[in-house]
Amino acid sequence: MSNGGEASGLGEKMYELASRLYPICRSITGEGVRRSLEIIKELIPLEIKEVATGTKVFDWTVPNEWNLEEAWIKDASGNKIVDVSRHNLHILNYSAPFSGTVSLEQLKPHIYTIPEQPDLIPYRTSYYEEKWGFCMSHTQFAQLEEGEYEVLITSSLKPGALTYGEYYLPGRSKQEFLLSTHICHPSLANDNLSGMSLMTYLATLLRGQNHRYSYRFLFIPGTIGSITWLATNELHLTNIVGGLVTSLVGDGAPFHFKKTPDGGTELDKVVELVLNESPLKHEILDFVPYGYDERQFCSPGINLDMGCLSRSTYGSFPEYHTSADNLNFIKAQHLRESLEVMQRIVEVWELNATYINTNPKCEPQMGKRGLYAAIGGASDKEILQMGMLWVLHQSNGCRSLIDISKRAGIPFDVIVKASNLLLAGQLLKSTESS
Amino acid sequence: MSNGGEASGLGEKMYELASRLYPICRSITGEGVRRSLEIIKELIPLEIKEVATGTKVFDWTVPNEWNLEEAWIKDASGNKIVDVSRHNLHILNYSAPFSGTVSLEQLKPHIYTIPEQPDLIPYRTSYYEEKWGFCMSHTQFAQLEEGEYEVLITSSLKPGALTYGEYYLPGRSKQEFLLSTHICHPSLANDNLSGMSLMTYLATLLRGQNHRYSYRFLFIPGTIGSITWLATNELHLTNIVGGLVTSLVGDGAPFHFKKTPDGGTELDKVVELVLNESPLKHEILDFVPYGYDERQFCSPGINLDMGCLSRSTYGSFPEYHTSADNLNFIKAQHLRESLEVMQRIVEVWELNATYINTNPKCEPQMGKRGLYAAIGGASDKEILQMGMLWVLHQSNGCRSLIDISKRAGIPFDVIVKASNLLLAGQLLKSTESS
Amino acid sequence: MSNGGEASGLGEKMYELASRLYPICRSITGEGVRRSLEIIKELIPLEIKEVATGTKVFDWTVPNEWNLEEAWIKDASGNKIVDVSRHNLHILNYSAPFSGTVSLEQLKPHIYTIPEQPDLIPYRTSYYEEKWGFCMSHTQFAQLEEGEYEVLITSSLKPGALTYGEYYLPGRSKQEFLLSTHICHPSLANDNLSGMSLMTYLATLLRGQNHRYSYRFLFIPGTIGSITWLATNELHLTNIVGGLVTSLVGDGAPFHFKKTPDGGTELDKVVELVLNESPLKHEILDFVPYGYDERQFCSPGINLDMGCLSRSTYGSFPEYHTSADNLNFIKAQHLRESLEVMQRIVEVWELNATYINTNPKCEPQMGKRGLYAAIGGASDKEILQMGMLWVLHQSNGCRSLIDISKRAGIPFDVIVKASNLLLAGQLLKSTESS
Repeated sequence: MSNGGEASGLGEKMYELASRLYPICRSITGEGVRRSLEIIKELIPLEIKEVATGTKVFDWTVPNEWNLEEAWIKDASGNKIVDVSRHNLHILNYSAPFSGTVSLEQLKPHIYTIPEQPDLIPYRTSYYEEKWGFCMSHTQFAQLEEGEYEVLITSSLKPGALTYGEYYLPGRSKQEFLLSTHICHPSLANDNLSGMSLMTYLATLLRGQNHRYSYRFLFIPGTIGSITWLATNELHLTNIVGGLVTSLVGDGAPFHFKKTPDGGTELDKVVELVLNESPLKHEILDFVPYGYDERQFCSPGINLDMGCLSRSTYGSFPEYHTSADNLNFIKAQHLRESLEVMQRIVEVWELNATYINTNPKCEPQMGKRGLYAAIGGASDKEILQMGMLWVLHQSNGCRSLIDISKRAGIPFDVIVKASNLLLAGQLLKSTESS
Repeated sequence: MSNGGEASGLGEKMYELASRLYPICRSITGEGVRRSLEIIKELIPLEIKEVATGTKVFDWTVPNEWNLEEAWIKDASGNKIVDVSRHNLHILNYSAPFSGTVSLEQLKPHIYTIPEQPDLIPYRTSYYEEKWGFCMSHTQFAQLEEGEYEVLITSSLKPGALTYGEYYLPGRSKQEFLLSTHICHPSLANDNLSGMSLMTYLATLLRGQNHRYSYRFLFIPGTIGSITWLATNELHLTNIVGGLVTSLVGDGAPFHFKKTPDGGTELDKVVELVLNESPLKHEILDFVPYGYDERQFCSPGINLDMGCLSRSTYGSFPEYHTSADNLNFIKAQHLRESLEVMQRIVEVWELNATYINTNPKCEPQMGKRGLYAAIGGASDKEILQMGMLWVLHQSNGCRSLIDISKRAGIPFDVIVKASNLLLAGQLLKSTESS
Repeated sequence: MSNGGEASGLGEKMYELASRLYPICRSITGEGVRRSLEIIKELIPLEIKEVATGTKVFDWTVPNEWNLEEAWIKDASGNKIVDVSRHNLHILNYSAPFSGTVSLEQLKPHIYTIPEQPDLIPYRTSYYEEKWGFCMSHTQFAQLEEGEYEVLITSSLKPGALTYGEYYLPGRSKQEFLLSTHICHPSLANDNLSGMSLMTYLATLLRGQNHRYSYRFLFIPGTIGSITWLATNELHLTNIVGGLVTSLVGDGAPFHFKKTPDGGTELDKVVELVLNESPLKHEILDFVPYGYDERQFCSPGINLDMGCLSRSTYGSFPEYHTSADNLNFIKAQHLRESLEVMQRIVEVWELNATYINTNPKCEPQMGKRGLYAAIGGASDKEILQMGMLWVLHQSNGCRSLIDISKRAGIPFDVIVKASNLLLAGQLLKSTESS
């Protein structure tokens, strides 16, 4: 994490991308998603894919596409008391179309508020039950007067497609690391513009590099998006050796890593190592079958070794799913920190090799191979020598460098340095066939 | 455990059964055992079985049958200073017959007392060494005067049989749960009339119900009885998937559960769950190869997953094996509590199924199956929904509902309710072939 | 450890052997090693073996043999300011020959001192880089005056052999326990004369006894010696079921046991049991791939279950590798204590059998076999009876008596006594084929 000045510029760029995406009215399908993905495509060569309405995806079916033109309520005086053009959250997401004049009593069941947070507009959806509705602050709702209200919702729910973005960055190996973020929330900044921005900029950084692993980035609507992607890519899943779902990475809360169901996979080890060595606070959480799309990626019949990385956690902060999760709630600095943590996760994932000691019978003679000379001047000479002895002792083709680092109580970077010296001295060989 | 009023009546009935059995002079064989089993047979359709003296049972042999008519000591004045008709503990159990006049010095080696508890009559046996003797309070013993004593023991030790009772209650599966209590102690209330009463009334309650498992109740003499039953039923043992030995369940001590040798079997999990959720105090004890008939059931060549449930523990209370373990020492309330715990153990044992998720690829769509509606009104809606997600995630055919309850940190009954909803929605299937 | 008086005599003898060996100038090869082994051969029938210079031993090659006749430095006045005949540590071990007159400036790079311990002569070696040099106290070094110095080192580095001693003590089984100590240090008492003395006297004590296991004692130069022995005995290693490297056993520090890499082998269990029951202080250390010859014996391609037993540990005490590690630093009493611990380790190793219960179906009838009578009078009757029940319950051919002792919470010696009673009653059989 040495890219100080540049990284600070990156934070600003990440924030800027979030700002551009903020005004778009997104949902799990529709034009808002397409427009958002086009913006991301300006930065990375995203493939934008469409899966037709009605496609069977495991237990689910791709729904009708939803698009919205206009939505407002006028009071008896003809004032637009609510208008989605002022805030995307005003519309019940996936609302059916409606046009008519209703009494206050008839209107009320169609209005969603948060009495406990009276000044905030809630975010509500109704994907699988067809109904119409609006969201507003409870303060405004409480002041609505008796009388007639004119309501217009010119939305459409028609056969179309579910749209998502995918970017595949090939590495030396076909084994791949999967990164996924949801893109379906309209005008919510931390949940999920922060994740879209993080994934986009991580991709820009990895793009120019030579990688051991392949990386796949998914920008998908929540739940139905991951289910659709998994169902249409099922034969391909065996290449995936780890991955992360990410969102809520723009606020200043400590990092939270939700482990895989197994809890002891390489993914868990890598992320825990990165968070443990970071000066930023963090907490490690056990898997629960609730949350973001790790619910699908980690479902028992899919069973990928994936976790979820966030700062605040799903549903746990007061701004969650309200109009307070806006562009003031996220900061360039926090986005940059999250990017740096993700970069380091990728770096450690790449470095965490598993080797075989080519000279396992007694210790090799280091001196004749110049290995003592190689470390002679190093300030960390003694720990590096211990690192070499540990790597030789433990490298049986099963234990990774993280495993060895833990057993030896020696920092991972020293173990990596030691293994590189031993590789140069031909005392280690790779377990990979390539 | 909702049968409040009725259960309170049950406690009285359990106490009454113990009271009827108390005066009978029992031993490991003989008429006392037969008469006791006949009384139990009035309540449940017990099979009373006889195994002939001399039958080889593993390393042991069924001994001669012992019966006693009369046993007393008269002092020089002709007063019966000890008479078994006053208390069954006065006779050394399995005493050889004797008739004669002896000096105090000759008598003394045949008298057993407890100097530390001078007012109590001890319970002593001599099954495998033929000798005659009496038990009395140390206070009385200390006051015996020099002189001649007339002694009469009209006992018989002759080929006959070992008698035990067995009640088999078939369930939907041949897999069975084995319940065993010893019946050989004469006029000792907690050890073992409480166990006989508990087993009898548990059987009356289970009798009318439809069960997943079969239940087998054994009323057997200690040690030689379990060895005899195991030796004569060896081919049948593979059906036994768990069980409990029980005694000492009429006093007010906290419950004690002695685990199986393995310590992590389904039996252990079920009993620990029941005791942990009970408001009554309890303690979990590791297996030791000493105690009641679990010594035989858990011996390495038999190896059943059985534990021992009691309130006080084997040999650990001052009334143990003395005349103080009488009908005042046990209470209807304690017997009822023990019965309720046993009923709940059976209930959890029945409910603790292991399922397979029929839709393991991504989450199933709960809504279209009416599962969200099904829980919509429940006060525990949120935890029930989490329970459904956990049951779906964990049900791979290996993990039981108790395992899932523990991993999820959700009460067992909620997990059961969740699994029933999922079964109704055909999202789970049973691992059982039936 | 009951050989009080005699053992005290043994401590004096052990110290005496160390004293005889102290003045000899040893190295990893040469006449000093041969002379030292000849002295040990007076006490045990040691085989003295030679492996020729140039022999390939895994990644290494047996080096030229080093011998030294004379080595001194004279000042301008012709005074011998340093003379190896005064202290063997004065010569850089394996120093190349040299003869000439040099200035102080030219001399200085060839002199080794310890500035932090200015009064001590350090021990330095240069086995694999050919150079000449001397060691002296820093105090003396600091007082060296400008001027010419005459230097003479009449050493030879020529093809010869690496010499080591081996003593094989056959037991009833071919399975063997390997004991190894290094012998290459000149005039250092704790490191390693204490180890040589301990191994020698342990061999004298075991020699007269009838053993279950075979014992092999190696007296070898450090690193190259163990590598040479392993490379030339590779086919034989499968017989080795455990072993210890030992040195630093003459000082008064607490015992330190460095475990095997696995950490849970029989060797670990035995040594931990012995140290735990000893009144002397001790510490158990995890394996690290650094230290003495366990580095080679435990290297992944060799993989013997060996640990290292010492009092002070490798490199951790101020006298380490200096002239202060002399005959005042070790004590007869400490050597004797170390011998007693080693004897007990061998004793427990021998006793730690694994049996099979011959009567696993229910408990055997102890009474008819006289086993209750056998323990009737014992003061430890109750615990011995529990020991018998535990041994019967646990003896499935996999669990050793130490395993059973730990599970039962019963002292090892009681478990051994119980198992001997059961063996006599034919209730156990050995798992060994012999």
